[in-house]
Amino acid sequence: MTDTILKEGERIDQLFSTDVKIIQNKDVFSYSIDSVLLSRFPKIPKKGIIVDLCSGNGAVGLFASTRTEAPITLVELQERLADMAERSIQLNELQDQVRMVNDDLKNLLNHVPRSQVDLMLCNPPYFKSTETSKKNLSEHYLLARHEITTNLEEICQVARHALKSNGRLAMVHRPDRFLDIIDTMRNYNLAPKRIQFVYPKEGREANMLLIEAIKDGSTDGLKILPPLYVHKDNGDYTDEIFEIYFGKNGRAD
Amino acid sequence: MTDTILKEGERIDQLFSTDVKIIQNKDVFSYSIDSVLLSRFPKIPKKGIIVDLCSGNGAVGLFASTRTEAPITLVELQERLADMAERSIQLNELQDQVRMVNDDLKNLLNHVPRSQVDLMLCNPPYFKSTETSKKNLSEHYLLARHEITTNLEEICQVARHALKSNGRLAMVHRPDRFLDIIDTMRNYNLAPKRIQFVYPKEGREANMLLIEAIKDGSTDGLKILPPLYVHKDNGDYTDEIFEIYFGKNGRAD
Repeated sequence: MTDTILKEGERIDQLFSTDVKIIQNKDVFSYSIDSVLLSRFPKIPKKGIIVDLCSGNGAVGLFASTRTEAPITLVELQERLADMAERSIQLNELQDQVRMVNDDLKNLLNHVPRSQVDLMLCNPPYFKSTETSKKNLSEHYLLARHEITTNLEEICQVARHALKSNGRLAMVHRPDRFLDIIDTMRNYNLAPKRIQFVYPKEGREANMLLIEAIKDGSTDGLKILPPLYVHKDNGDYTDEIFEIYFGKNGRAD
Repeated sequence: MTDTILKEGERIDQLFSTDVKIIQNKDVFSYSIDSVLLSRFPKIPKKGIIVDLCSGNGAVGLFASTRTEAPITLVELQERLADMAERSIQLNELQDQVRMVNDDLKNLLNHVPRSQVDLMLCNPPYFKSTETSKKNLSEHYLLARHEITTNLEEICQVARHALKSNGRLAMVHRPDRFLDIIDTMRNYNLAPKRIQFVYPKEGREANMLLIEAIKDGSTDGLKILPPLYVHKDNGDYTDEIFEIYFGKNGRAD
């Protein structure tokens, strides 16, 4: 099956802790640790409707699928990435649970009912469009990383319309956008409730944050979760990250 | 000297890493770890003007005094606490550098020149006045812990008037007030720049935060510093906290 499902330059990466396989292409788009961490950050509802916005090659939504029976809608604007995700859905035989919508997230309400989504996951473009740099050679990476085709404002606005009251938006982002994020969320009635900062290793500043907001929630009772370290001093993954990648019993060989 | 300087019920606590001695009274007011952490959180300017608002028995300002030659003004509304601080200043022979102002912080500009303060330290009341509970038997603790005689709004307003442009406000507070804090700071042109979350031990949520804001600063470039843990699993202080209390070479016996 894998011979026919892959296009030129593509490979299959497996997240061993979930057994999910994802079609990657380093010249086009590959998921990385931020997607893995986002997929395990929020409590995943067992039923209801789940949406993965800015889904790229589908990693976040596909990883989350193993923890729920709820239908999951992936939304990705870039056709090339949506095509990779579509084939990853087939590769994992998840067609009955996961569907790919290749559309602008602004049009989300054409694909899911208004005010009825339970959980929205989003690994958005991190950088303001003004911070574009020539380092990003591929247009696919450029659009995935910079706020060119969408931005925080639009994502929070769509979340407000699609989420049910008390539905949740979980996002991974960068700490230097932190004030923007909490301001924009609150502008759209999304109350930040849980935040976890991710540090590359001990003694370093945070370089990632995970944040969960509740639609129509009160802004009291914000929790700052225990920090997450990615690497040990020697460069290996910490035990916690190793378990997230490979499961409790290590690599499933 | 110590026989005559102490009143009934008082004792002297020493922060061994600084050699500073503080007059305490557990029935009236005693500093705790939040004051110690606040005193070493910001870069302390070598010269200029430093103010310690809500200074209580003077711990924060007195600890900070060992790292600078700048004059330090302590401001405390409660006469009983101001009196303890005044005697701690004498006990440490710091009368030439540290002075106690027993006044409402609203009147700060009667005591320091407008727009000329380099650093303002503040360990404010943490709880909203509506959260008062009968657990606090002493009126002194009640006023120190609840926003009865002052609040975040007033502190940030005073800071804006007293700080020079690019002067800094450093505060210790609780994570559940985090959104309030950053909103109020920004309402008064104080841009949050450095935040450190403090965790009681590994695996727990943060129960304290240290935050530094710059007057008239841009709100870009916020840094989330490495987390600080207070206790090891066995209940001992972590090495980092032990060093903050006792210095690099341990207790100075």
